[in-house]
Amino acid sequence: MADSTKTLLDESQMPRRWYNVLADLPSPPPPPLHPATLAPVGPDDLAPLFPMDLIAQEVSTDRYIDIPEEILDVYRLWRPTPLYRARRLEKALGTPARIYYKYEGVSPAGSHKPNTAVAQAYYNAKQGIGRLTTETGAGQWGSALAFACSKFGLDCEVWMVRASYDQKPHRRSIMEVWGATVHPSPSEVTEAGRKILADEPDSPGSLGIAISEAVEMAGKRDDTRYSLGSVLNHVLMHQTVIGEEALTQFAQAGETPDVIVGCTGGGSNFAGLFFPFLREKLAGRISPTIRAVEPTACPSFTRGRYTYDYGDTAGFTPLLKMHTLGHDFVPDPIHAGGLRYHGMSPLLSHMYELGLFEAVAKPQTECFAAGVQFARTEGIVPAPEPTHAIAAAIEEALRCKETGEEKVILTAMCGHGHFDLSAYDRYLSGQMEDFELSQERIDAALTRLPNPEV
Amino acid sequence: MADSTKTLLDESQMPRRWYNVLADLPSPPPPPLHPATLAPVGPDDLAPLFPMDLIAQEVSTDRYIDIPEEILDVYRLWRPTPLYRARRLEKALGTPARIYYKYEGVSPAGSHKPNTAVAQAYYNAKQGIGRLTTETGAGQWGSALAFACSKFGLDCEVWMVRASYDQKPHRRSIMEVWGATVHPSPSEVTEAGRKILADEPDSPGSLGIAISEAVEMAGKRDDTRYSLGSVLNHVLMHQTVIGEEALTQFAQAGETPDVIVGCTGGGSNFAGLFFPFLREKLAGRISPTIRAVEPTACPSFTRGRYTYDYGDTAGFTPLLKMHTLGHDFVPDPIHAGGLRYHGMSPLLSHMYELGLFEAVAKPQTECFAAGVQFARTEGIVPAPEPTHAIAAAIEEALRCKETGEEKVILTAMCGHGHFDLSAYDRYLSGQMEDFELSQERIDAALTRLPNPEV
Repeated sequence: MADSTKTLLDESQMPRRWYNVLADLPSPPPPPLHPATLAPVGPDDLAPLFPMDLIAQEVSTDRYIDIPEEILDVYRLWRPTPLYRARRLEKALGTPARIYYKYEGVSPAGSHKPNTAVAQAYYNAKQGIGRLTTETGAGQWGSALAFACSKFGLDCEVWMVRASYDQKPHRRSIMEVWGATVHPSPSEVTEAGRKILADEPDSPGSLGIAISEAVEMAGKRDDTRYSLGSVLNHVLMHQTVIGEEALTQFAQAGETPDVIVGCTGGGSNFAGLFFPFLREKLAGRISPTIRAVEPTACPSFTRGRYTYDYGDTAGFTPLLKMHTLGHDFVPDPIHAGGLRYHGMSPLLSHMYELGLFEAVAKPQTECFAAGVQFARTEGIVPAPEPTHAIAAAIEEALRCKETGEEKVILTAMCGHGHFDLSAYDRYLSGQMEDFELSQERIDAALTRLPNPEV
Repeated sequence: MADSTKTLLDESQMPRRWYNVLADLPSPPPPPLHPATLAPVGPDDLAPLFPMDLIAQEVSTDRYIDIPEEILDVYRLWRPTPLYRARRLEKALGTPARIYYKYEGVSPAGSHKPNTAVAQAYYNAKQGIGRLTTETGAGQWGSALAFACSKFGLDCEVWMVRASYDQKPHRRSIMEVWGATVHPSPSEVTEAGRKILADEPDSPGSLGIAISEAVEMAGKRDDTRYSLGSVLNHVLMHQTVIGEEALTQFAQAGETPDVIVGCTGGGSNFAGLFFPFLREKLAGRISPTIRAVEPTACPSFTRGRYTYDYGDTAGFTPLLKMHTLGHDFVPDPIHAGGLRYHGMSPLLSHMYELGLFEAVAKPQTECFAAGVQFARTEGIVPAPEPTHAIAAAIEEALRCKETGEEKVILTAMCGHGHFDLSAYDRYLSGQMEDFELSQERIDAALTRLPNPEV
């Protein structure tokens, strides 16, 4: 494999089970709590929103869960995904490090999101559900669910944050090509939406509002459930096909990673890549440094508090113990929309507290500089989110250049940037800014945490 | 392979030489002629525009030409490309036919165009050329050349038709991400552009004008050459890596194609797929029907005349013997911008006259209906151009449903539609129209053929 550019697997080498990291943790993450009673949320509380198979996966401690054949059949439309050796980037950097990236942009929706969207659509269809609702910000998740629903004959209804609906018409269009119905949020079709429009007819919307609308509609009809694209345990587990494939590919390439980097918004793409490597690390077979990369504009790991908070802005969801900047913290408008979430997956938050990985934060101009260098060397134009991982990989590779270390760096490249070119435009024309996030602003948002604090 | 979705090749199975169909034709195509002298155009006439290696390839009759290692190295960024079996589409159609598609959308630029762009950039760089100029309409070709130039340290200057420049800012942005300079055409930087702007300051531009500007700039500087994305013999030859891979993949899948379909604008993606299969057919090893699919709005094969005409609207190029609708014929504004060319590759035109393949024409609404059905079953959203091939594949598969024939259909899927979603929008909202092309309009354009007719 010495001179190869990428390591491809055959369909027969596709993982046939998901890896559940809960089985290997010394303690489970604290449970979600009912906001009124503060009692742990149980399966019955979740049944109106999720199908029973996914609720069972959410709390399972089985180490492996078999992937149903119907899901594997859809995964085969783009999986296994390639593992690339970034030889041209290495050469441009003049580093002795070897940089690999696992590329999920080959999925029809262009990101890692379909790995869980397909699973969620399948389990809902299996339970006889006819329709899924969800929210989407920039549109990556809505696209993935629209694609997945088209594979199992489910209707898909997406509430898309009004500002994105107007600014990213192509993301809306691709959801419609796959047959989804897309509402701008706030919308007239829900009580939550109507209430906001009554107060503010020109509301640009927010992810928090869109969640409220999608959840409201799911609760209203027996044939409808709600679908979430990150944060939850089962979502992170579905993404472990990424890491399982990468393990096989590293074995095939005769390599062992020394550093694993991935961007974190809700955490699913990073978790999907590193969980299987962590299993090997906990078993003493490898010893990579594992590093989350978040935006300086929304630094939940590096500057947030580990406490119970709401998952949404309006405070409708159960209380989740997580690294949070406060449920009504509104990040500055960086272009990596998928990383603009005030909280973090409770499972990843727990693991961070256990010291199982580290975290750094990057400003967006450094990330876009990395994205452009990546595009000009490796060809692929990355989405704004994975440019954070690329920036961290480049930083590590340049450190190796100084020390002479031949480290092997594995980078999570979770999607392409074909729908994000206006952001590159701003960067290349010198109009992109970085934002200073003052401690006062974080502290102010954290004073509005749910009361009583648990 | 019975249950597989796709057939992947290893990098070691990548073709290491291009196939030159000229070696296997009973007669060569008529040569291009100098418009003033009507003498065949020779290498010296072309040297100001193209590097010598490409001029040599243009007239070579060697059956195979080795692909330099430097080009293979870049091809490895996305090649070999997958061959898919469209099982979900087959099922939706209820056909006994087996539909395969060779997918070129996995390249960084999203189409088959980099196969030749990389080769052209390499040979120019090898000759010490520092800059390439080209024109682009919708942006597929300009993107491919921008990507390719970034791999060999060449400057790339693209004249993009003003209407597209304004309507498709993301296509411009991706070229700039790869480091290209993009001018709206007509531009102030060329004499040809200034002349047109003087008469018509708001000119929306045309491919013909953009060609004139790119050619003018290439002629002005010794370090600059011009690059063309289709039509020429060497361009079609570079694309044969598609068909060579598909031949290997069919052998691996244990299949033989009965029908091969591909869309034709200038002809390079169709030629790239079928030339290697034609070689096998001429050798008596297989016997597929080979079918070009063109838009009814620009039907050069099915309604054009086979005669000498200019390659550009303004009449600056040599005279080319080809199927043409007249060099100043302006096709109705269908969304498949890559198929809106008044002429056809002279090589393909000659082969059509020899009866080596057949041609049909399709209206765009039928093609977009096929594109949406493809997206909802197979996942990938095709570019408007290959929806023509998909529509023809579906037509053939439905014919098989009636007759019960288990034909094997091979479809050229030359690119994704991530930059063409406004066209899908128009289709889904019922606003897309088909155009009637009257015989009077064709006849009128053909009265303006160059005089004397040769």
